[in-house]
Amino acid sequence: MTVDTTAHPSPGVTAAAGFQASGVVAGLKASGRPDLALVVNEGPSQVAAAVFTTNRVVGAPVVWSRQAVSDGVVSAVVLNSGGANVCTGPDGFLDVHRTAEKVGNVLEISPGDVVVCSTGLIGEPLPIGKLLAGVDDAVSHLSRTGGLAAATAIMTTDTVPKTAHLTIQGDRGEWTVGGMAKGAGMLAPGLATMLCVITTDAVVDAETADAALRAATSQTFDRIDSDGCMSTSDTVTLLVSGASGAVPDPAGFTAALTQVCAELARALVADAEGASHDIAVTVMGASTEAAGLAVARAVTRSNLFKAAMFGNDPNWGRVLAQVGTVPESVAPFDPDQLDVTINGVMVCKSGGAYRPRTEVDLAANREVHVLIDLHAGPEVVTVWTNDLTHDYVHENSAYAT
Amino acid sequence: MTVDTTAHPSPGVTAAAGFQASGVVAGLKASGRPDLALVVNEGPSQVAAAVFTTNRVVGAPVVWSRQAVSDGVVSAVVLNSGGANVCTGPDGFLDVHRTAEKVGNVLEISPGDVVVCSTGLIGEPLPIGKLLAGVDDAVSHLSRTGGLAAATAIMTTDTVPKTAHLTIQGDRGEWTVGGMAKGAGMLAPGLATMLCVITTDAVVDAETADAALRAATSQTFDRIDSDGCMSTSDTVTLLVSGASGAVPDPAGFTAALTQVCAELARALVADAEGASHDIAVTVMGASTEAAGLAVARAVTRSNLFKAAMFGNDPNWGRVLAQVGTVPESVAPFDPDQLDVTINGVMVCKSGGAYRPRTEVDLAANREVHVLIDLHAGPEVVTVWTNDLTHDYVHENSAYAT
Repeated sequence: MTVDTTAHPSPGVTAAAGFQASGVVAGLKASGRPDLALVVNEGPSQVAAAVFTTNRVVGAPVVWSRQAVSDGVVSAVVLNSGGANVCTGPDGFLDVHRTAEKVGNVLEISPGDVVVCSTGLIGEPLPIGKLLAGVDDAVSHLSRTGGLAAATAIMTTDTVPKTAHLTIQGDRGEWTVGGMAKGAGMLAPGLATMLCVITTDAVVDAETADAALRAATSQTFDRIDSDGCMSTSDTVTLLVSGASGAVPDPAGFTAALTQVCAELARALVADAEGASHDIAVTVMGASTEAAGLAVARAVTRSNLFKAAMFGNDPNWGRVLAQVGTVPESVAPFDPDQLDVTINGVMVCKSGGAYRPRTEVDLAANREVHVLIDLHAGPEVVTVWTNDLTHDYVHENSAYAT
Repeated sequence: MTVDTTAHPSPGVTAAAGFQASGVVAGLKASGRPDLALVVNEGPSQVAAAVFTTNRVVGAPVVWSRQAVSDGVVSAVVLNSGGANVCTGPDGFLDVHRTAEKVGNVLEISPGDVVVCSTGLIGEPLPIGKLLAGVDDAVSHLSRTGGLAAATAIMTTDTVPKTAHLTIQGDRGEWTVGGMAKGAGMLAPGLATMLCVITTDAVVDAETADAALRAATSQTFDRIDSDGCMSTSDTVTLLVSGASGAVPDPAGFTAALTQVCAELARALVADAEGASHDIAVTVMGASTEAAGLAVARAVTRSNLFKAAMFGNDPNWGRVLAQVGTVPESVAPFDPDQLDVTINGVMVCKSGGAYRPRTEVDLAANREVHVLIDLHAGPEVVTVWTNDLTHDYVHENSAYAT
């Protein structure tokens, strides 16, 4: 097997055969930047799968799109930035319906095969006239090299478009998985408050696509937690064109999909609002995966820990204080057996101070690696987060104004 | 019944008869500020109760003090700032033992009747020689007016000492409850990462004292959540001297104790690290108290909500996004029925925008009142928190250096 990820920036959703995409200015953003993206599956397959936020308060686009994808068939995804269309009542749902109908009419496909995604401020109605006019423009700009334009049009506070792809040349032929994602705030598991479209030209049935997408997102987007805040709009859609004719085995497909998702998830953390550090919290020696995940999430949600990281202070006491908040029923461990290693220096051994914290250099690199050994089992889990910075506070106190 | 809370500042732990206290400089703090406090119960009763953090990683003082209070008898509480004595291994526990023995020897009481509390940085050994020498000094300074000195000596990043008291003149005689508390960071339920000593000259048995203290703290300290971070050292100790001879009924005693705890808890929020707003999140229409509490805590832990409050932005979308993270099994409600009122202005009704957010003035007052109506039952719960500010990030990224 060989792997090709040489194109930089990656064309994202148009890396795989059988897809066209575009990104245009519909006028939803006051800044005048691109704000409407379209991704169209030219087939021959129209197989699709999607996963959504588990928030109980969801945008009208999520309500619509859950239904649209439920039959495993999606022909197009339309995405807008400049407004989340969340908490907008019956009118908000009507606007989603209109958007899907417009896309369906222009592309001559069923509106029920159109996934709709929106991102931006909660509680404000979309300027639907501008959006519908923008759909015409987006269709006229559709192109087999439009992936980067689409990735750019879904950005909100993102500073860079996020795209990735992977081409597999194996026994069963050559096939590609590509994707784009946006998300820089409200990043927390289930999913990482974000919009993402992934495309593939492999031949995959709906059941395999769904299982592969759930497996891939649970290991990637579900394991980044920038600020602990779960979004109302998270949507990850996988579109399968089958245009390569290659039929990968399900495990190989899941692995490739997971790799593309991991690359996009890492890009989200790297571009998180106001962050100065990307922090990998790895829990080893966990009794179960769930135990390791609970401990890792407790640490990645601590403002005190995250503020210490911002100050380049390897404050392992704040790590242990968070580890201790996890109930024994969730994660068995002995507090007197806990080890903490930060950037390769074991600062805490058996629950107490070990190497001097002055040996840890946090300032030199954006990446920080915190390793917690529970000494309670064989499982290892990593969750990525960011530090808590002045710029985070600034961006999120001034966002709406 | 009349109530006397006229003394400002309150003498705190020495407001009730039968108690002496002191606060001295033992040299544990680099700043040279007072760092050792002592509270002694002169009786005739030595009844006591205490509640502790539910963190599984706890300081040696918590391990010791849980044992000391388990028989319902405590004669003295010694508290130091300048070091938490957490994650300090067997030597740390030995230091607690030495401290209790020293206090016991000098006061001629059993070391097993001495509660020990420490607050400060985790993972550093205490300078035990200085601490033991400080005990002699603290004993020599004991006084029936020493409450404020004691409250001052337990401050860490607190900017003001926190004391409160309440005198009840009722059918059963006159009795007083007084207390002191410290805590400005690592403030989260179970308990609100803090040290607190409460004294009373009422005549109360051990069982009543324990039940009253658990009831009072569950409604007060357990309902403030400044930064979501649970401490390793939280200790609230109630000492009963019985010196007034008055025997209150248990309900009246619990009410008075709750009022003193509420006043101290409110003072902790008012002095939280770097905060510019004190925010009361009230959930009404909850099906159960637990449901209301879960929803309130979800909101008070949202960095996005707290940053919006700092920016004086009545961003109800971020409130709803947090409400939606609470599982239906915990808090039943219909997302389309949610109302949000901020400082008296209903900005969200039935899950959608209502009054314009421009009608809400957040800048004028430090206090903010957020009212969420779940329309799912009769229960009402309030949790206090603070906004997320630049000063919070600054204090907590620079704390250890």
